[in-house]
Amino acid sequence: MIPIVSVVGKSDSGKTTLIEKIVPELIRRGYRVITVKHDLHGFEIDREGKDSWRHKQAGAQGVIISSPQKVALIRDVDRDMSLEELSDAFGRDADLILSEGFKKDVQPKIEVFRKEKHAELLCTPKDNLIAIASDRPFDIGVPCLDIDDVKGIVDLIESTFLTGGRREGVSLRINGRRIPLSPFVERFLVRTIKGMISSLKGGENPQRIEIKID
Amino acid sequence: MIPIVSVVGKSDSGKTTLIEKIVPELIRRGYRVITVKHDLHGFEIDREGKDSWRHKQAGAQGVIISSPQKVALIRDVDRDMSLEELSDAFGRDADLILSEGFKKDVQPKIEVFRKEKHAELLCTPKDNLIAIASDRPFDIGVPCLDIDDVKGIVDLIESTFLTGGRREGVSLRINGRRIPLSPFVERFLVRTIKGMISSLKGGENPQRIEIKID
Repeated sequence: MIPIVSVVGKSDSGKTTLIEKIVPELIRRGYRVITVKHDLHGFEIDREGKDSWRHKQAGAQGVIISSPQKVALIRDVDRDMSLEELSDAFGRDADLILSEGFKKDVQPKIEVFRKEKHAELLCTPKDNLIAIASDRPFDIGVPCLDIDDVKGIVDLIESTFLTGGRREGVSLRINGRRIPLSPFVERFLVRTIKGMISSLKGGENPQRIEIKID
Repeated sequence: MIPIVSVVGKSDSGKTTLIEKIVPELIRRGYRVITVKHDLHGFEIDREGKDSWRHKQAGAQGVIISSPQKVALIRDVDRDMSLEELSDAFGRDADLILSEGFKKDVQPKIEVFRKEKHAELLCTPKDNLIAIASDRPFDIGVPCLDIDDVKGIVDLIESTFLTGGRREGVSLRINGRRIPLSPFVERFLVRTIKGMISSLKGGENPQRIEIKID
């Protein structure tokens, strides 16, 4: 599983600014980061009249634009997706998914707080708050870091989510729906599959395995 | 495996226009279509200054923008991806991948031809050309359909790629690399995995199975 951390905070508290500082430090330390942003107002991937825009207008559920430097995908969904679903569908190859907002999701959160903007925090420790990045101290039982202490904030993300023995994770989807697995079934699946592929050329040292059957 | 068809043709032959006609007819017949377009000139997913644009500028390898109606992903790649790679990474849930261009890819192709624009075809049957959509007849050993015969063109796509006994397909990636499988190994993997999951709640009637281990 790719770890997911959300930077949350009341409006204008500095979420994007903090992400702009965290991302380069994570990259410097060698991690691949994918960010997620909610956009309730809609967005355009493309300019009106461009070929890919015309494909989408014609009714395609999704449009992929491919270039040697980057790839874009825009596709219809029938509801707001959770961070876990977004990570599953689009997070491939990332070490960390860093979202801005998504306060209602269950994922671990870092709240940004600036005293000139608000009087109170948005979250409580019950919201799976793992840290506060603030310009004033808080004593609510979670670490409170200085809003400008980028190194300290990234240290905390790294030590919590990115270092050492990552738990071996398995996700199983059948007909698109995620199937919950008990630890026993999870171990059974992982070991059986690793056993099966171990004799294949290229299967000697599997860090990451993806199987699709359709 | 999701079938991939490319609409190819010399410049200004009417590729986008044909795709604009084909897509609604496919949708009308109940298929989910994702289109692919090459863009060598680069593109912007987002307007300068927007939060997601700022995330990308900060160095994120990928940015996801999520709304209740659509999701966009833009991510860095280190080279031009093949249609098969794009389909693998981004084609989830589609019935058909329809690309504009990608003449050099190995996928089946339909060439668009208009006599007022060009004197000769771009492809030969050797390029995996399965049909020509043209305003003049060609006799080169592949079906030549009228450029305006949208129903006929979609009939051909449907009968070739979309109806009846789809081959059971399995794709295996280890550490991100696709592992080629012999028919024996493929059958062995599919049957073992289907056997394993058959007793799980939700695993009774698996049409599509995805497993990720990391």
